[in-house]
Amino acid sequence: MPNISQRGVNMPASPIRKLVPLANKAKAKGIKVYHLNIGQPDLPTPQVAMESLKHVNRKVLEYSPSEGILSFRKKLVQYYAKFNIHVNVEDIIITTGGSEAVLFSFMACLDPGDEIIVPEPAYANYMAFAISSGAVIKTIPSHIEDGFALPSMDKFEALITPKTKAILICNPNNPTGYLYTQEEMHQIRDIVKKYDLFLFSDEVYREFCYTDTPNISSFHLKGIENNVVLVDSVSKRYSECGIRIGALITKNVQIRENVMKWCQARLSPPLIGQIIAEASLDTPESYMNEVYNEYIQRRDFLIEGLNRIPGCYSPLPMGAFYTVAKLPVDNADKFCAWCLSEFEYEGQTVMMAPASGFYTTPDIGQDQVRIAYVLNREDLAKALTVLEKALERYNQS
Amino acid sequence: MPNISQRGVNMPASPIRKLVPLANKAKAKGIKVYHLNIGQPDLPTPQVAMESLKHVNRKVLEYSPSEGILSFRKKLVQYYAKFNIHVNVEDIIITTGGSEAVLFSFMACLDPGDEIIVPEPAYANYMAFAISSGAVIKTIPSHIEDGFALPSMDKFEALITPKTKAILICNPNNPTGYLYTQEEMHQIRDIVKKYDLFLFSDEVYREFCYTDTPNISSFHLKGIENNVVLVDSVSKRYSECGIRIGALITKNVQIRENVMKWCQARLSPPLIGQIIAEASLDTPESYMNEVYNEYIQRRDFLIEGLNRIPGCYSPLPMGAFYTVAKLPVDNADKFCAWCLSEFEYEGQTVMMAPASGFYTTPDIGQDQVRIAYVLNREDLAKALTVLEKALERYNQS
Repeated sequence: MPNISQRGVNMPASPIRKLVPLANKAKAKGIKVYHLNIGQPDLPTPQVAMESLKHVNRKVLEYSPSEGILSFRKKLVQYYAKFNIHVNVEDIIITTGGSEAVLFSFMACLDPGDEIIVPEPAYANYMAFAISSGAVIKTIPSHIEDGFALPSMDKFEALITPKTKAILICNPNNPTGYLYTQEEMHQIRDIVKKYDLFLFSDEVYREFCYTDTPNISSFHLKGIENNVVLVDSVSKRYSECGIRIGALITKNVQIRENVMKWCQARLSPPLIGQIIAEASLDTPESYMNEVYNEYIQRRDFLIEGLNRIPGCYSPLPMGAFYTVAKLPVDNADKFCAWCLSEFEYEGQTVMMAPASGFYTTPDIGQDQVRIAYVLNREDLAKALTVLEKALERYNQS
Repeated sequence: MPNISQRGVNMPASPIRKLVPLANKAKAKGIKVYHLNIGQPDLPTPQVAMESLKHVNRKVLEYSPSEGILSFRKKLVQYYAKFNIHVNVEDIIITTGGSEAVLFSFMACLDPGDEIIVPEPAYANYMAFAISSGAVIKTIPSHIEDGFALPSMDKFEALITPKTKAILICNPNNPTGYLYTQEEMHQIRDIVKKYDLFLFSDEVYREFCYTDTPNISSFHLKGIENNVVLVDSVSKRYSECGIRIGALITKNVQIRENVMKWCQARLSPPLIGQIIAEASLDTPESYMNEVYNEYIQRRDFLIEGLNRIPGCYSPLPMGAFYTVAKLPVDNADKFCAWCLSEFEYEGQTVMMAPASGFYTTPDIGQDQVRIAYVLNREDLAKALTVLEKALERYNQS
């Protein structure tokens, strides 16, 4: 039997993955598991999106254009304009989820050995796409004590080598929920400009910013227009993660031409997903407002609850629907596994994502977990009670 | 502005791509273009598939499992059994089209520099996925005079180096329509076994085999069960290319574990596509028979028509819905472009895929084109007339 690839061996498995069998076992024992570990909102997909499925009147479910359906791309131009992101239809390439936009950005911009600087904790799958493309991720730790603010400019500069080709940010951030300030965005712009780097900017949580100041996109930054590649997805904003529709947006024609070669190689993004995503752009404001308010209430409820548990600490995240919290445990990997395999409180337990999966620097964040507030407040309340009881029991044993 | 990747520069653009603007210009002039260049069947998607869209009664279009929906994978087990392909549900991983199955096979099995042997002419996008993964494709020419039969064993052996990790076949073949015989499949098995290679077997045209003998899958080959990775897709068999649902099937547990890391990184294959594909498995036999008979009639009609044109030659392909034909021209690239930009016959012209895009060995197949019989016979008849007139005019000028 021939050997599988070393690249595959090097690929990180999903940080949640080893916990899944434990969760399944708990459920098989009849234990109710509160899933604080996932990025799948519980909120309903908008009605206009669901309705669009009933009106697919085609004889053939044919390939769509490799760059995506033109009418959808045109409508996205208007969508982005609302956020003061001014793009032409040619700037927008539709991808199979935000994931593919990340992969194609790396493939089109980076060669094996090229380096990307990423503040950590960071979305674990960036690492997988870097390994796929042979690029190397260099991380700079951000710290829970500062609420995961952007590391200082000299921390970035200390990592820059002749191999450095890009900075990658996720804003609002997964996993921390951190939202970069105007000052921080200007700092990123200055480094990108000074060293002439690509800026990969994952902005899939754009709709979920909880400050009163307008959200700053990488597309707002002056003087680096040809350096920015925006990664987007409809998954989170319309609670339709399953349709796998994202976008790669850039003013840089060379990048687009390169990316299009990958788009043509995989022929086309999902047709039905695009139909749904296009319809979703007509989602009424009232839906978006409800979702927004729901998340703010959940966030406030969750963070307050967490900070009331002895030894726990979470900053107040200003975006997305996650937080990274510190728990009074030696090792969150062990604790998360223990919650699923050895603990229950009144027939319930919690599943959380150990933060170790979001760091590449060893030994950081070992007492941290990512918690997603994608459950309703009633369930969040129960989950908080379960977590408090679990910590009590864990620290007694 | 930073440099884009050399990898992207090396990526081949689609062989059809440079012709598209010419076709668009012809259409803008009011010329009817017969598309003999595409792999998108004109046949309707089955009714059961279209109906399934109307019954998606979910509140949330959520992520599906990374390996695909269980009920769909279970039903595929029964589907494959009809072809004497005996697999368990764990052997089947659902992918975003056959394309992703090829990419993930390469990523999981091959490291940069590893070599894959592929008979040519070959599907052009294999090259794109090889470049993505850093693997190197080594081609062995097959010849139109032999009807594109498998090259002899010594041709394969001549290419084998310590870097050789895999053989890739497409059977029935795109672009040639060639169907490997039992003897040829045993020859492939013998090489795979002798040198302990992976066998990537693209079998997406399984349903379109026009011999009376049963189709031989790589899964039928004894003694190399752990070497075979089957690439599949529902695109062609149900005329639903746009839903982007394929599969990667292997008995090799290590490969599956590696592949699953990529599946988890991209989170999930398209949800709605899987719902449609699952429903498509209930397509009545009558639909499949009609499609089958339609293709046989088209094939016979097309090949007879081609061979009646002076100087043209096409073997009779025994599978898929393509043929590679030889034309009496110096350079098929030039001729195909000329048909679109400088020729019309009674307000019509033809678009074909120059075969050069399917060869990597230089200077082979320069007088060849790939023709897909995805048009009805009436249109095929008109296209053949147009082609004959075009050849007459081209060779006079």
